[in-house]
Amino acid sequence: MLVIRNIGELVLFDADAAPMVNSAALRRINDAYVTVDEHGRIVTFGPDADCVALDWFEVVDAEGGCVVPGLVDFHTHTVFAGTREHEFVMRIEGRSYAEIAEAGGGIKTTVKSVRAASEDELVNLALPRLHRMLGYGVTTVEIKSGYGLSVEDELKMLRAAKRLNDLQPIEVVGTYLAAHTVPAEYTDNREAYLDLVCSDELMGRVVNEGLAEFCDIFTERTAFTIDESRRVLLAGKEQGLIPRLHADQITQIGASKLAAEVGAMSADHLETIDDAGIDAMKSANVIAGLLPGCSWYLGVEQAPARKIIDAGLPVALATDFNPGSSVVESLPLCMNIACTQMKMTPAECLIGATANAAAAINRGQRLGAIREGMQADLVILDVPNLERWMYEAGRNCVRTVIKNGRVAFDRDARNS
Amino acid sequence: MLVIRNIGELVLFDADAAPMVNSAALRRINDAYVTVDEHGRIVTFGPDADCVALDWFEVVDAEGGCVVPGLVDFHTHTVFAGTREHEFVMRIEGRSYAEIAEAGGGIKTTVKSVRAASEDELVNLALPRLHRMLGYGVTTVEIKSGYGLSVEDELKMLRAAKRLNDLQPIEVVGTYLAAHTVPAEYTDNREAYLDLVCSDELMGRVVNEGLAEFCDIFTERTAFTIDESRRVLLAGKEQGLIPRLHADQITQIGASKLAAEVGAMSADHLETIDDAGIDAMKSANVIAGLLPGCSWYLGVEQAPARKIIDAGLPVALATDFNPGSSVVESLPLCMNIACTQMKMTPAECLIGATANAAAAINRGQRLGAIREGMQADLVILDVPNLERWMYEAGRNCVRTVIKNGRVAFDRDARNS
Repeated sequence: MLVIRNIGELVLFDADAAPMVNSAALRRINDAYVTVDEHGRIVTFGPDADCVALDWFEVVDAEGGCVVPGLVDFHTHTVFAGTREHEFVMRIEGRSYAEIAEAGGGIKTTVKSVRAASEDELVNLALPRLHRMLGYGVTTVEIKSGYGLSVEDELKMLRAAKRLNDLQPIEVVGTYLAAHTVPAEYTDNREAYLDLVCSDELMGRVVNEGLAEFCDIFTERTAFTIDESRRVLLAGKEQGLIPRLHADQITQIGASKLAAEVGAMSADHLETIDDAGIDAMKSANVIAGLLPGCSWYLGVEQAPARKIIDAGLPVALATDFNPGSSVVESLPLCMNIACTQMKMTPAECLIGATANAAAAINRGQRLGAIREGMQADLVILDVPNLERWMYEAGRNCVRTVIKNGRVAFDRDARNS
Repeated sequence: MLVIRNIGELVLFDADAAPMVNSAALRRINDAYVTVDEHGRIVTFGPDADCVALDWFEVVDAEGGCVVPGLVDFHTHTVFAGTREHEFVMRIEGRSYAEIAEAGGGIKTTVKSVRAASEDELVNLALPRLHRMLGYGVTTVEIKSGYGLSVEDELKMLRAAKRLNDLQPIEVVGTYLAAHTVPAEYTDNREAYLDLVCSDELMGRVVNEGLAEFCDIFTERTAFTIDESRRVLLAGKEQGLIPRLHADQITQIGASKLAAEVGAMSADHLETIDDAGIDAMKSANVIAGLLPGCSWYLGVEQAPARKIIDAGLPVALATDFNPGSSVVESLPLCMNIACTQMKMTPAECLIGATANAAAAINRGQRLGAIREGMQADLVILDVPNLERWMYEAGRNCVRTVIKNGRVAFDRDARNS
């Protein structure tokens, strides 16, 4: 029902299924077209000269721009209330993220704000964030709980995320992260909090209400141990929640190895990953989720992306958008950071933010690539090729975003 | 003739004149107003409760947003043709900027494109760049020549810059940078090129046509020596062009000390500055021009901003926007980079991108601060305070831009 014509460069992936390790799978067609059927699926594509003109099609003119798959931000904390600019300034003045967290700041500050907010307020705060993300070319966003840390507040966050899915074009995917940190009221009774996290009262309701597909945990010296993490992830797995982890961010305590052990779909962060972690993840087909915006925002060392890629692990990229350690909504900016600071090529960044990111949230068969039968989530850029997009760093080059076969964002329409 | 009311935080500088060394000079008024007269000058400001309502004023409602001075991008190469994304990928793959330049790429690639372009083409390519810069809150932009490297091509670039000043709201300031690199046709006769740079035929015409206020040079191992730089800068000074330098970027050859010796208004880059350079610049009141976007874009070490500030030098910030080493149009993004990577506070970044930047292009008495009698170049943000702006990194928080007392950009009007 829709055709995009006059595409300067259509970016395709050869591989049949994500995740992909090798960017050699990236292929391009110049002067191309794409057609989309009434169900929002990609039907045909190829050189524009081969396009059969049917007058009942809606025609979008790409004006020579590059067309890529809609971006998938597979690791975010987009539902939250409150801001933490005072901590931003404290870090500039020399305090570390861990120090601020240990002094009662960090995640706990946002927990106070989220508990004080209603579900409606959480929805209304997140809507403009998702609207801006759409304008950056993002068509799917994973959102975690983890600032509630009580039965009602965790459910409130995940219900807000679920409502957001229906209120705007971006597909929202829920992740259960009650094990983000131990809340203040359980400081002297961690075991009881872990009981709650794994309880029918909380985890069970998350599953029964269909609020999450994944169970995540912050495995870190300042958060949860390896044994605690194993317990939570296996409890979630038993209830059908796919495991994933915040792993190897600040200290190396074996989280990436645990990711392999429990069969996690992804292990994210990996700033401090070691060879044993890389080997374990490779054996268990765990996707390496890298979050360039977070390390950039904190002003700390990036994850060793080249080492991870060269070792044969598939890499996915996300913003980690959250109100403390990555107040970075723009996935393309994170791709720019991956290019300039982590020496990932534009091709590796695009694969990481589309096909591999879709695979990291179990949607690799439907999203993240331009292929016959896949969902038509497409981004038209105002630059003629992928490399030019990454080269023009920090500028929003997105002109039009198509979600599920429909135009969901059009920059020029906004200007007219 | 215009009043801005309902300002959440109005940011002022106490000091009588830029450049400022100490961010303690920054002061704030909450719930404030500002009035502007028919000449585009700031008349009064203060607590909103003190605002005398006159019904013949144009009223702009800041809706609780923070108001800061219009940003001044005092070091850019915004007039150019062609793109260099292939070099961007080469750097990711391990080649250095200097290696690429020595292999005939770098600046010389852009010289070919600029020579092939007409003055009209250069103007038309730069207009959308300036339009986007305005949307980031930038109200004054310095633009250098340096991609022509012949009499006609250098004049063409500077004439394009001068025309741009009249074609859009941003004030454009010209800088003569024929000594950007030695063009290919003079490789075996550097002396003859330096003669041309200093000649009546070229430098003389730049001065006579009023095309530039500054004479700049790339003092670097791969470009011009200290002695060559001294010659060009003193020749310019004799003709009334204020000296400034690209100094201490890649190698330490004494460029910041030369800046002090010739009385440069600013020495820019300073990634490799040493103690002797800092001392010399301090004695001679040279402004330290830092370019965070460039080091970030190249993936190299940033200039030692904290050391420079702590030594008592005033710091100014610019994008260095150019098609090779800093394809970064957004000065607020460069301020974010200065916060997160160089540990400059939001207050230091704002002073660096306004008052001190204005001083670096000899406009410290008219631009870069909100003070009675100063030109009303003002930015209304959609966040309530300065720290929140820098905290929400990578997002464009600019709602309205006022240039010389008139609304020059309004994001919401574009959306309606």
